[in-house]
Amino acid sequence: MSPDTLDTPSLVYEDLLTRAAAAAEPASAATPAERARWLEAAADALDAAAGDLVPVAASETHLPEGRLTGELKRTTFQLRLFADVLREGSYLDARVDHADPGWGMGPRPDLRRVLRPLGPVAVWSAGNFPFAFSVAGGDTASALAAGCPVVVTAHPGHPLLSDRTAAVLASALDKAGAPDGIVGLVTGVETGRRLVADPRIRAGAFTGSQTAGRALFDLAAARPDPIPFYGELGSVNPVFVTPGAARERADALVSGFLGSVTLGVGQFCTKPGVIFVPAGTDLVERIAQGAGTLTGAPMLNDRIRSGFAAALARLAEQPEVTLVAGTTDVGTAPALALFTTTYDQHAPARERLEVECFGPAALIVTYDDPAQLADAAAALDGQLTATVQGTESEAELVRPLLERLADRAGRVVWNGWPTGVSVTHAMHHGGPYPAATTPTTSVGTAAIGRFLRPVSYQSVPDGLLPPALQEANPWNLPRRVDGALRLP
Amino acid sequence: MSPDTLDTPSLVYEDLLTRAAAAAEPASAATPAERARWLEAAADALDAAAGDLVPVAASETHLPEGRLTGELKRTTFQLRLFADVLREGSYLDARVDHADPGWGMGPRPDLRRVLRPLGPVAVWSAGNFPFAFSVAGGDTASALAAGCPVVVTAHPGHPLLSDRTAAVLASALDKAGAPDGIVGLVTGVETGRRLVADPRIRAGAFTGSQTAGRALFDLAAARPDPIPFYGELGSVNPVFVTPGAARERADALVSGFLGSVTLGVGQFCTKPGVIFVPAGTDLVERIAQGAGTLTGAPMLNDRIRSGFAAALARLAEQPEVTLVAGTTDVGTAPALALFTTTYDQHAPARERLEVECFGPAALIVTYDDPAQLADAAAALDGQLTATVQGTESEAELVRPLLERLADRAGRVVWNGWPTGVSVTHAMHHGGPYPAATTPTTSVGTAAIGRFLRPVSYQSVPDGLLPPALQEANPWNLPRRVDGALRLP
Repeated sequence: MSPDTLDTPSLVYEDLLTRAAAAAEPASAATPAERARWLEAAADALDAAAGDLVPVAASETHLPEGRLTGELKRTTFQLRLFADVLREGSYLDARVDHADPGWGMGPRPDLRRVLRPLGPVAVWSAGNFPFAFSVAGGDTASALAAGCPVVVTAHPGHPLLSDRTAAVLASALDKAGAPDGIVGLVTGVETGRRLVADPRIRAGAFTGSQTAGRALFDLAAARPDPIPFYGELGSVNPVFVTPGAARERADALVSGFLGSVTLGVGQFCTKPGVIFVPAGTDLVERIAQGAGTLTGAPMLNDRIRSGFAAALARLAEQPEVTLVAGTTDVGTAPALALFTTTYDQHAPARERLEVECFGPAALIVTYDDPAQLADAAAALDGQLTATVQGTESEAELVRPLLERLADRAGRVVWNGWPTGVSVTHAMHHGGPYPAATTPTTSVGTAAIGRFLRPVSYQSVPDGLLPPALQEANPWNLPRRVDGALRLP
Repeated sequence: MSPDTLDTPSLVYEDLLTRAAAAAEPASAATPAERARWLEAAADALDAAAGDLVPVAASETHLPEGRLTGELKRTTFQLRLFADVLREGSYLDARVDHADPGWGMGPRPDLRRVLRPLGPVAVWSAGNFPFAFSVAGGDTASALAAGCPVVVTAHPGHPLLSDRTAAVLASALDKAGAPDGIVGLVTGVETGRRLVADPRIRAGAFTGSQTAGRALFDLAAARPDPIPFYGELGSVNPVFVTPGAARERADALVSGFLGSVTLGVGQFCTKPGVIFVPAGTDLVERIAQGAGTLTGAPMLNDRIRSGFAAALARLAEQPEVTLVAGTTDVGTAPALALFTTTYDQHAPARERLEVECFGPAALIVTYDDPAQLADAAAALDGQLTATVQGTESEAELVRPLLERLADRAGRVVWNGWPTGVSVTHAMHHGGPYPAATTPTTSVGTAAIGRFLRPVSYQSVPDGLLPPALQEANPWNLPRRVDGALRLP
């Protein structure tokens, strides 16, 4: 966050937080079907406002309109997908254990368990996805789906778009019958810090830098009543090219890598920042040559640009690396800067070299012995993604490599590229620290679980139970009954 | 933990941690069916050792042999229940999304997601359940089931039992084929602090006091790489008696409450420490009278006894309360001490009065207006349990009360008592802070989820996928396929 962003005035802040807290009970009381309609209404309104929103986004972020139109589509798709999740209902993890006098450890009472919303959630927008990870993005969608009011801290990189998006979202939710105060927008670094410490806030969700994310995580953990803080803090997303892949499809590797590393001017948390390639091939030369044919593009804003310039300068200073393409002189439209080193130089220096450099830059590491790939994998910090470019005939090499990578990364990609995070049921976007602060996902339908907590009801009469747990299963939920999963 | 417990020597500690870290990969690689056999072997061995273990437990804790025999049965039942969970397989939350060129936000690749173990887990034993929440207790069972090695910090209240239990457990696991080092035992406060900061430890699980639990939580959060710390820190477990219940079944209420509050000499984290009863009845007198007929019993150990004496003295000092049964002079076998106050005196002082007093003591609060119950419920700190003693004909009163309590507690009990935590699929033992440090359970089958994290595989060939995600579903798992839950 830029330190010069104006903080939300205290009176406005208090009003927003009071209303968010008051919205928690009606938001929780609404049925999943009602909340599904809220999300769909929000998606429809955002789609209808595309003509207004996309140009504002383009002018604030320098991102092309085509990309932004696609990103808005992703955003509204996501809201509708959570509506499906609500209607299907297994996100509630409803469990019914009937009273059992013969239960192995002694008679058990009737016990029924369901998930319920945590309460108001603070969301911090990311700068690089002004729709999909911003005001109406994934964290907001999953928190609203869970039944939690949301207070978003706007990203200073797109303040006007944040304001307009919040207005469209709030108006649509209001018209759809959602409680007043269910979405609020604040601005400023100090306001964000105030938010994470506010007793009315019950969870935080963040996508951004390690420095900012860790600072907020620390505040969340230091509260008198600590709250979960779900931070996605980025990573270097290593790619491992096997000798077989290098032999069989060098052209595709060169073009695929160059496309992935420069997508969105390298401003993706899944940008492949390190690639291991076999020595004794011409891959480094071909990648460098390919890089030379690419033109640069403006970055999101000056703050990002100067951060990139600083990270690039630090990397260039490391004695182990050599610049093989591009320049460390970041102009107004930086092109791809590529460094190279050898495995032997890299291994002892990996803590200095495997550092996220947010922008169009990457490090190519050449290895002599394919066995070094597993060692490099084992030494990795936590990653959002890790990619193997290999061949199935190299099973002896790639099988243990994939296992190591599954241990260090949230998503393991085979013969593809890590950029492009599909919103699906099986997507996991997270990973061991520092990729993320908790073992949860911020993309895909599983993200709803972050904002729910279980409660068990013991011997409560059917008429006093929440519908999800009543004997007749009025919501037709998948439920676990006496230990056995049952579909409706 | 007692500060005078000897810490595990550094050389022994290093050996244990090295072996635990080395055990992580084979423990993770073992199939769920293999791990199920490990757990069953451990349960069989502990059952077979009951004749050795129970007398040691009795001599170290002053708990009666009958109770300890039952608790050991609960402990081995729990290990076997997790074996069932492993064989059923839905704990893996396996998800398969086939590649879909027509996916709404743009073509999606083949994505498959499964949960895998976090790695070595540090467990802190509780003093009041020397079997069920100790070396081979719930945290150990759920972590082993998840595929995580465990290093237990022994509770200083039963060091010999801890040592013997660990020996039985380790030997049984070893004979069953589990990797060397999968269970280790350490002692001492400093060793426990060292453990939570150890980079080889990937999660912590604790049952005990707020002070000790929060200190460990803070260390876990302050690590360079923070880890999840699952602390169950106790609560006051309020009981709300409606006017209808007081009219209809005063006898049962008196005997039920006295039985629950004195169970295990009041040394349960689910002990009802505060009970709200209607004014203008003779409930207070009858409870006090009943208390007078009970005899005391020795507490677990001197440290617990002096802690109870101090907490009792603090409560007695509060100007709002009056002692109506028992004494604040805690002898060697404390009997029940009961205090009383009114709702009007209690409400402004609740932060001083609603404080866990670990031992046979409780506060009776008389109310004039049943509407005050919902206010008292809304003002509660996070609780493990909250109980309503009511009648179904009072729906207008109890329905909103149950809703408020579900917001503040992990388990809501109707016309029962909170002590006695059944190990089932639908049990939740946790609650908002300070009852627990995270929204997870430490009892019941859902506890396994604490020690797992998701990983997604993108476009990985079938033969290189883990069995849980292969197209043929060789483990016959319940899976979510293209969004739809499917039973095997």
